[in-house]
Amino acid sequence: MKKLNIQLLLTGNELMSGDVIDSNSSKVGEYLKDIGLTITRKVTIADDVKMLANEIELMSQQADILIINGGLGPTVDDLTAEVLAKVIGQPLQQHPLALQHLSTWCKLKQTELNVPTLKQALLPKNCNIIANKIGSAVGIHVTHNQCDIFCTPGVPSELFMMLSNEILPTIQHQHPNNSQIDITRMHTFGIGESSLQKIISNVFPEWPDEVELGFRADFPLLELKLTTQRQQDLAIKNHYAKEIELLIGEHYLEHIEKKTKTLAEHLLNLLQQKKLTITTAESCTGGLIASQLTRISGSSKSFEAGFVTYSNNMKTKILAVDEEIITNFGAVSKETVLAMATGALKKSQANLVIAVSGIAGPTGGSEEKPVGSVWIAWGTKHNLQTQYFCITASRHYFQEIVAARSLDLIRRLLINSKNIPHYIEPINR
Amino acid sequence: MKKLNIQLLLTGNELMSGDVIDSNSSKVGEYLKDIGLTITRKVTIADDVKMLANEIELMSQQADILIINGGLGPTVDDLTAEVLAKVIGQPLQQHPLALQHLSTWCKLKQTELNVPTLKQALLPKNCNIIANKIGSAVGIHVTHNQCDIFCTPGVPSELFMMLSNEILPTIQHQHPNNSQIDITRMHTFGIGESSLQKIISNVFPEWPDEVELGFRADFPLLELKLTTQRQQDLAIKNHYAKEIELLIGEHYLEHIEKKTKTLAEHLLNLLQQKKLTITTAESCTGGLIASQLTRISGSSKSFEAGFVTYSNNMKTKILAVDEEIITNFGAVSKETVLAMATGALKKSQANLVIAVSGIAGPTGGSEEKPVGSVWIAWGTKHNLQTQYFCITASRHYFQEIVAARSLDLIRRLLINSKNIPHYIEPINR
Repeated sequence: MKKLNIQLLLTGNELMSGDVIDSNSSKVGEYLKDIGLTITRKVTIADDVKMLANEIELMSQQADILIINGGLGPTVDDLTAEVLAKVIGQPLQQHPLALQHLSTWCKLKQTELNVPTLKQALLPKNCNIIANKIGSAVGIHVTHNQCDIFCTPGVPSELFMMLSNEILPTIQHQHPNNSQIDITRMHTFGIGESSLQKIISNVFPEWPDEVELGFRADFPLLELKLTTQRQQDLAIKNHYAKEIELLIGEHYLEHIEKKTKTLAEHLLNLLQQKKLTITTAESCTGGLIASQLTRISGSSKSFEAGFVTYSNNMKTKILAVDEEIITNFGAVSKETVLAMATGALKKSQANLVIAVSGIAGPTGGSEEKPVGSVWIAWGTKHNLQTQYFCITASRHYFQEIVAARSLDLIRRLLINSKNIPHYIEPINR
Repeated sequence: MKKLNIQLLLTGNELMSGDVIDSNSSKVGEYLKDIGLTITRKVTIADDVKMLANEIELMSQQADILIINGGLGPTVDDLTAEVLAKVIGQPLQQHPLALQHLSTWCKLKQTELNVPTLKQALLPKNCNIIANKIGSAVGIHVTHNQCDIFCTPGVPSELFMMLSNEILPTIQHQHPNNSQIDITRMHTFGIGESSLQKIISNVFPEWPDEVELGFRADFPLLELKLTTQRQQDLAIKNHYAKEIELLIGEHYLEHIEKKTKTLAEHLLNLLQQKKLTITTAESCTGGLIASQLTRISGSSKSFEAGFVTYSNNMKTKILAVDEEIITNFGAVSKETVLAMATGALKKSQANLVIAVSGIAGPTGGSEEKPVGSVWIAWGTKHNLQTQYFCITASRHYFQEIVAARSLDLIRRLLINSKNIPHYIEPINR
């Protein structure tokens, strides 16, 4: 079986100047790998008619499949449709389906169908379009030099939607024997990559060649991946997947299929199963935990209210934290987070609570309580637990890490976990 | 003056599979931009002798300068030196300076100078080496097809060190007149890309060739960029930048230099200038607005507290929204957001407020109030304004867009803006 030659052409001045890091092409690589294919060659150029035409012609001569990314927008530097038309020797003309999409789109957005927008319906004559459900620019599919050329928008969500919905199914349909692969992905939290690798190597010193073992940091989660290339190796892969699941214990979240699940989603699932509600009392995370929970559809069943009490005064006023507690122990203390948790439970009548208070930095630290210090309280009215961490990271990552650990700690409480997560050091236990 | 043709060849299997996002090339773009140069073309391929040889030959025919990144390490898939030797028709031989570097390096690291390491001294005969002060692999500099070829290691810190210390100074020395560039960037919000393009084309039908105009979506912001290549065009670029600033009006945020500013950052700057505080009462955004504000260091000066009141009951209990208002008008109504705003102002004693209530979806809509409906209230105790939107987008984008518009609306209030943003349709005004 001849290996498919798949090439990727990226276009955009911003990709040349360093203004933007290209993450699209890496994601395209991932999507292709999931169906057992790899990119053979990538070329990146600025928005330039002559160069673009030259690359499209040469790449289509070499490749079986050419995916072009970028240059489909409404502005003058968007050149893909125009250049493609020239290369394949077709005139540009208004594509009826693209026009229909644009007018529906503008109606929906209640904006005018103006000249720059209309430009997005000017496509090479007789081309096929690729539907765009979330943006104005449709994709283009033509065949030239016996190469399937797919033009996609630079906006990541639109590119990925087109890949999943049309481009990959088309490739799989046309080349059915090129895509035999099966992947099991597992999301974990609370165990480090090197510990996980070590446990697995200890238990399985003779790892089978048929199953590829991979790790991928998917902040804040760690993904473990088992891949097989051939149908006949499925059983052995599934066997090892089950064994590893047992090894990981409660650090393991659950199998995920393509769609990444967040810690908040895992927690909300548990809450809904147990018909419990949760509230949040946030200082240093400033609403991030509430926002991660409410990002998920259906969260209203388990989340009624949250409090962002950034100043000491508001901790007292809104959550009824005793002023003396703050004076005596400080805002970043076990006593204060316990009082915040109790206040939030009372105000919201929720079953469970997460309360956090810390110093996100870069300023505000002291010798006794350095930047990165944080106290978390979590649990129910009658079973509140607390934990201190010192997390050395930028403000942004500090907030994300505190949110992730908070969600994980309450998840572990709900499943009565005995596995101690790696982020709790022996000295703090 | 002919523009320098600078090409970049990236090699590595991990760049094709999606396991690694290439950030090296974007950084090379930034380094070059700092001295007024841009990359003309980038090619990325797997570690394959034939493909590598082919690309090096073709690229060196086109380019003045070719930077090759990756493939200089000790393992079998590191092929750059071997392939380069073949392409330029020189034998591989042990380079005395490279050997000396390796033995010093191994002594420093207290490791053995073994066969894989020694491979890194096997270089094309008569090549120049580029010193590596922080790693084992030296770089290579040769001339072929009148093109300067620089081979660099894939390790980012080693690449950037070679760029700064040797490669860029060499280029600047050889092409002293090629490095003049100047960029003005402007961040806007509340005006669409196609409208902006239209306004500019209308007012300046004869846009000057000397100034390159570019747009870049930086969700939720839109960046506009004016670039000149030559010192003598600076004045004309600055002239047009000022004109465009006037055209954009209050949709314009402010000049940004490299560091991107968020809407929350712009708003916090204004609040700090005016010594005002703000609070949030969030239903459908669930803490996202508070979290965007508190992500910024120093936000505690202007933000003391925020409320996430997701259920009707909590709107009443925490923000004292009259139950009858919710019964009579619904939770997503002008009356409810006004009451939420008033309640939050009272509880927090802040000067300003943002209150939002809407249906993020995908479920929960009705015919009268479809998914995407949202009411926003903003302002001060004595000057509260409201606005209705229907935003068709995924739950995640709905929340991000509501947060962005809320922050923008209060920004516009603070600067007494008379420019109506594009997201407010005539019918709602």
